[in-house]
Amino acid sequence: MDFAYDKETEELREKLLGFMDEYVYPAEAVLEQQRAELPDPWATAPIVFELQAKARELGLWNLFLAGHPEHGGLPNLQYAPLAEITGRSPRLGPIALNCAAPDTGNMEVLTMFGTPEQKKRWLDPLLDASIRSAFAMTEPAVASSDATNIGTTITRDGDSYVVDGRKWFITGALNPACEILIVMGKTDPDAERHRQQSMVLVPRDTPGVRVERGMTVYGYDDGDHGGHAEVVFDNVRVPAENLIGGEGEGFAIAQARLGPGRIHHCMRAIGMAERALELTCRRVLDRVAFGRPLADQGVVREWIAEARVRIEQVRLLVLKTAYLMDTVGNKGAHTEIQAIKIATPRAVEWILDKAIQAHGAAGVSQDVPLAAWSAAVRTLRLADGPDEVHLRSLARAELRKYA
Amino acid sequence: MDFAYDKETEELREKLLGFMDEYVYPAEAVLEQQRAELPDPWATAPIVFELQAKARELGLWNLFLAGHPEHGGLPNLQYAPLAEITGRSPRLGPIALNCAAPDTGNMEVLTMFGTPEQKKRWLDPLLDASIRSAFAMTEPAVASSDATNIGTTITRDGDSYVVDGRKWFITGALNPACEILIVMGKTDPDAERHRQQSMVLVPRDTPGVRVERGMTVYGYDDGDHGGHAEVVFDNVRVPAENLIGGEGEGFAIAQARLGPGRIHHCMRAIGMAERALELTCRRVLDRVAFGRPLADQGVVREWIAEARVRIEQVRLLVLKTAYLMDTVGNKGAHTEIQAIKIATPRAVEWILDKAIQAHGAAGVSQDVPLAAWSAAVRTLRLADGPDEVHLRSLARAELRKYA
Amino acid sequence: MDFAYDKETEELREKLLGFMDEYVYPAEAVLEQQRAELPDPWATAPIVFELQAKARELGLWNLFLAGHPEHGGLPNLQYAPLAEITGRSPRLGPIALNCAAPDTGNMEVLTMFGTPEQKKRWLDPLLDASIRSAFAMTEPAVASSDATNIGTTITRDGDSYVVDGRKWFITGALNPACEILIVMGKTDPDAERHRQQSMVLVPRDTPGVRVERGMTVYGYDDGDHGGHAEVVFDNVRVPAENLIGGEGEGFAIAQARLGPGRIHHCMRAIGMAERALELTCRRVLDRVAFGRPLADQGVVREWIAEARVRIEQVRLLVLKTAYLMDTVGNKGAHTEIQAIKIATPRAVEWILDKAIQAHGAAGVSQDVPLAAWSAAVRTLRLADGPDEVHLRSLARAELRKYA
Amino acid sequence: MDFAYDKETEELREKLLGFMDEYVYPAEAVLEQQRAELPDPWATAPIVFELQAKARELGLWNLFLAGHPEHGGLPNLQYAPLAEITGRSPRLGPIALNCAAPDTGNMEVLTMFGTPEQKKRWLDPLLDASIRSAFAMTEPAVASSDATNIGTTITRDGDSYVVDGRKWFITGALNPACEILIVMGKTDPDAERHRQQSMVLVPRDTPGVRVERGMTVYGYDDGDHGGHAEVVFDNVRVPAENLIGGEGEGFAIAQARLGPGRIHHCMRAIGMAERALELTCRRVLDRVAFGRPLADQGVVREWIAEARVRIEQVRLLVLKTAYLMDTVGNKGAHTEIQAIKIATPRAVEWILDKAIQAHGAAGVSQDVPLAAWSAAVRTLRLADGPDEVHLRSLARAELRKYA
Repeated sequence: MDFAYDKETEELREKLLGFMDEYVYPAEAVLEQQRAELPDPWATAPIVFELQAKARELGLWNLFLAGHPEHGGLPNLQYAPLAEITGRSPRLGPIALNCAAPDTGNMEVLTMFGTPEQKKRWLDPLLDASIRSAFAMTEPAVASSDATNIGTTITRDGDSYVVDGRKWFITGALNPACEILIVMGKTDPDAERHRQQSMVLVPRDTPGVRVERGMTVYGYDDGDHGGHAEVVFDNVRVPAENLIGGEGEGFAIAQARLGPGRIHHCMRAIGMAERALELTCRRVLDRVAFGRPLADQGVVREWIAEARVRIEQVRLLVLKTAYLMDTVGNKGAHTEIQAIKIATPRAVEWILDKAIQAHGAAGVSQDVPLAAWSAAVRTLRLADGPDEVHLRSLARAELRKYA
Repeated sequence: MDFAYDKETEELREKLLGFMDEYVYPAEAVLEQQRAELPDPWATAPIVFELQAKARELGLWNLFLAGHPEHGGLPNLQYAPLAEITGRSPRLGPIALNCAAPDTGNMEVLTMFGTPEQKKRWLDPLLDASIRSAFAMTEPAVASSDATNIGTTITRDGDSYVVDGRKWFITGALNPACEILIVMGKTDPDAERHRQQSMVLVPRDTPGVRVERGMTVYGYDDGDHGGHAEVVFDNVRVPAENLIGGEGEGFAIAQARLGPGRIHHCMRAIGMAERALELTCRRVLDRVAFGRPLADQGVVREWIAEARVRIEQVRLLVLKTAYLMDTVGNKGAHTEIQAIKIATPRAVEWILDKAIQAHGAAGVSQDVPLAAWSAAVRTLRLADGPDEVHLRSLARAELRKYA
Repeated sequence: MDFAYDKETEELREKLLGFMDEYVYPAEAVLEQQRAELPDPWATAPIVFELQAKARELGLWNLFLAGHPEHGGLPNLQYAPLAEITGRSPRLGPIALNCAAPDTGNMEVLTMFGTPEQKKRWLDPLLDASIRSAFAMTEPAVASSDATNIGTTITRDGDSYVVDGRKWFITGALNPACEILIVMGKTDPDAERHRQQSMVLVPRDTPGVRVERGMTVYGYDDGDHGGHAEVVFDNVRVPAENLIGGEGEGFAIAQARLGPGRIHHCMRAIGMAERALELTCRRVLDRVAFGRPLADQGVVREWIAEARVRIEQVRLLVLKTAYLMDTVGNKGAHTEIQAIKIATPRAVEWILDKAIQAHGAAGVSQDVPLAAWSAAVRTLRLADGPDEVHLRSLARAELRKYA
Repeated sequence: MDFAYDKETEELREKLLGFMDEYVYPAEAVLEQQRAELPDPWATAPIVFELQAKARELGLWNLFLAGHPEHGGLPNLQYAPLAEITGRSPRLGPIALNCAAPDTGNMEVLTMFGTPEQKKRWLDPLLDASIRSAFAMTEPAVASSDATNIGTTITRDGDSYVVDGRKWFITGALNPACEILIVMGKTDPDAERHRQQSMVLVPRDTPGVRVERGMTVYGYDDGDHGGHAEVVFDNVRVPAENLIGGEGEGFAIAQARLGPGRIHHCMRAIGMAERALELTCRRVLDRVAFGRPLADQGVVREWIAEARVRIEQVRLLVLKTAYLMDTVGNKGAHTEIQAIKIATPRAVEWILDKAIQAHGAAGVSQDVPLAAWSAAVRTLRLADGPDEVHLRSLARAELRKYA
């Protein structure tokens, strides 16, 4: 047992910290300004491309792709502290390194399950950040945490599959650069409950694909993530070779995709929490009320100490989970992935809540990023399966030890 | 001691409940649509005027103005359950009855402290809902919960006062119908700490008044409240007779204004919680996951029961506070006003959080009102003085009993 | 709606507060001393009898017995604030007024369901405090919150009933003055689920009644309550006329008994919380660390303010519940009784926890009563049905509104 | 970074788990019985000596003494998982291995600061478990978390020191085998605030040492720990060579002692939590209410899952702290020691609370160990400095990064 980062990780952290200081943090204000002036509110701002070019030059590229050093991927345990650092600037850090959801998950799916043709056509440009992608699973009409509820159909018809259904909260799908959607639907509603679903690649410009609107999250349209689209698939026909894996493998692919996705969210959320804590400390040292800085208030001090205690705990659990993913595989780390999915968002949500309180009215406004982060982290408590589903599953595993 | 509403209150509740069912709830969708099409995003939607006409016809008008039955005002204890009902549709209910902040507080100020001329010029049209108003106290540069921090100056110069300063989160100031701002500033920075401030009426079209931007709350611009403006007062000159009360009375007026304002927020927040609980019950009875309605999940049931337990408690405390305001005055109810200001938002916030969780992704979106309400209620924890200031004050009062 | 106590209640409060100051608080130290020297650790200390004589003389006697002014009983709404005051000294206040559990519940049962003979034989001496009693429902072998689980049998045999079973946590049964037990058991295991149970009066000296041991509660034997006995009923034969009500009415009688019992516990617990808050304030004003009194610490102040906010809320809910019991009956107040049963113990537990923290090591010791009260209040969360059962029932009622 | 225990640790864990299964768990019932029959309620039960003999034979002896393999001591990181295992049976596990407080801390003090004579006279028999010891710091009259408050005086008089003062919660001092007390007092009240205190060895049989009574914790006297004594030192004279370290070094020695003490408590508390979770799982699988096992209740499942999530987090933080103590020293691990001191007791307290709830009335009784553990863990939140002191210190460290 050893709690120090290895030498390579330390070097990468140094390099990334430097990149954040020199390029990313200064770019935050630029992003605001550019976004305000973008002709298409869903498009990527130019500063992002600049950061990407720089990051690539520094070798900070595709780090998330565990098991694939040929693309730049690091083991999860090495990636975790780096992802955390990118999370300190969540709108720019991850995308700068081509490590932003949902592209990351889609690249993983294609890496693991794609045919050589699919890889060539979609994975390569994604690894290159020359296109963007989306993942279409959640549906408005059903509780999508239960995959058997999925209403979208994927029907074989000759050499094609025909997709029909309605999805929403399809992050990134409004970005004009988003060329491809991975769509989950049912190929066989009569099969065993986890063999009913399949996944198929649907180019966004396929006839019948209709991006209807952007869903908001606590008032935010998340334009810089390409929004969260409601998308209708109306008799959408794609070649049969666009199927990912085989028919009936959709659920398994989704599971394989969700593990890394969840841990990446947690890593970045910890970075958010660290930055929120920094913002809080700076604020309360500076702000004076009733004759002394807020930092002198016992209650404010308790928030700060609590934040530290909570961050340390979730970070270690995330790191251990990364370690397990590397050593016993994503399935072997299933319990831990669920545990961090539950523990991290609420710890970070608590810290953000106190950070907002310490900032007063500014805290809920556009002038500091805390409210927007708070919305994002709140959403993690129900995205990729609500906490309650994970808690139930954890309990089942625990009870099985004695049953 | 008697926990039943009196007969008049019961009749008013009946009438208001009918009004909500027949006019207000159906208007919610209309509001969305009209707002999407308004040429000025900060203007009032036409449906609001229709509702106001109807409410007025029914005698549901200016009910908030305790002590002034001549304008329709009810005692606080009678108004409380009605305000709660309007809070079930917070964007339409209060404004329909001309009981919406910040106009309510401004009407109270003018009723209590205005000269006959000020009343004629500003109070009458406000009571008539023919104009809107704003209240400019909070400043971006300082912790405004400590009134001695106020940086805006109000300087006597001959027959005028000259106002200089920067305010933000000035709710309503972006609405084109907003004609008048009540501005808090310092007339004498050397006076005793609670005699430094004064309040002055500043017509929004006075030269030097610059409404710079709308602040967002989480991602919401709250356009239907007339937004939350950042406003600069740059050498703004108003006649000396625009002073409210005397010089040095600004702090006392602010205190007098805040008491009713706080309880009104709490009353409405309880209505929000009731509606959120209703939405939750309906949702979980309807939504099926893993073979049964969410309503069958023990954890979901616990949320529902907890919500009921929390609502009952804060409602009673709010009602008792209203009773005290009627019987011993706002000052006599000071401790209770602080207690509800602390207890209500967090109870409602908890309920909204669970309601969102029960709604899944829809919960954070524009399709259900829960996330927007959540943002509004979160903000109450820091508006009009953050919880921490009230808690400290409550503790002081408690400790004084034994010191 | 009116939040003031009526004149009679105010007078009784005055009288009782005087009694507490003059007699009860000074008796607390005497009780400790007498208990240390009692030959039988389960017996009543002499000081209790002295207090009872005085209380009786003052007309503060049997106040709990709502609906029976002939015995001294007050309406619940009048009794509530008095019970709260007795709860400030929980080991002496309630018993001094002959308002202590479990005798109160047993007197209620006999008043409501007893035959004239049963009343003469058992109720009269209980009203007179010349004997004590116990209520035997909970069993060690089953989850007793589900009455269908009850294993004890009450079998008709000629002119007798024969009782067989094992009960525990039978409060008061170790007191040598405890002459009678009300025992719940099954007369017909095949009846409809709430008609299987009956209640029978079992004199403690009946052959076959074996008091085996006292159960402890967090290390406390609660000797001054007559302990919490484990009792075996081994072929215990009582005359058939000892049945209370009819066969199959046990469940209904238990329900009738539990309503008032629960609210009495809550009333007294609020008194405990008030006294704990007083002890805390006195302590922190007095105790100095790091150069200033603990009362100057912001975190300590927050505890104090929070305590006040929580007490006010639960008190109002308890009072409203009492009001409902008086006006619409115990059944009509069912939801509220469940709500206070959930809300009160945890509010008080929180306050006691902070009070203990403010007292340091003394807080957990025998030198201040906080740890003992904490154990008692913690136990309320599972006695008379665990919180979870009440929450489930509350949720069912809420969901039924929309189903 | 590596989250696996090393091979030696794994082997020791195997051995210790076997020892627990074969000897310790079966001894728990024996302990109860022997304690009930002990002539001296503060004495050690015979079964303890049997277990000690066996443990010693297995080489499981003095494992806590980090840095001293010659006595059996392991590095903290190796000891942590073993201490956790002993914590699963807290009354027998630690003492069986001669790893029980307060002897452990006293042995550490003597190892680090004792003279050869002091070691020979007191350390050797302690390492041998042939005597017991106590540590006398806390005083009833002052907030002892602030060492400058200490009232006990240690006055040089010729070749002696004279000790005067009153201490309480002196764990172990009632055990007849307790031969030596380490006493903290002031040698120079005028020195710099952390140089006023000294520590001196006081044999318990020195004239003037008066063990007055045992303090209870909740209702427990903790007889098997030798109780928590109130001890008066009345003109107690010991030879000058009984001073530990030099005059004025008392505070530094106390700090050195508290670090390991705190982490040991945390390690063991995690073991308690694991056992409580096991007891809970077994209980709820077995207990039936309303037609199904409690394990089927969603709320109960949530408790179980939450317990797992919380345990994993605090365990990792404790292990990292142990790692830091081994690699950068106890001072370097100061922040982390404070963090675990805050995080662990409350996590375990929460788990125990739910475990009690799942056990119903049995949960608070002497029949399951949960209430006793709960009292012990609650006490950790104020022992060795209340949480609030640690939080304040943590906040100070955090704020210093930006000041």
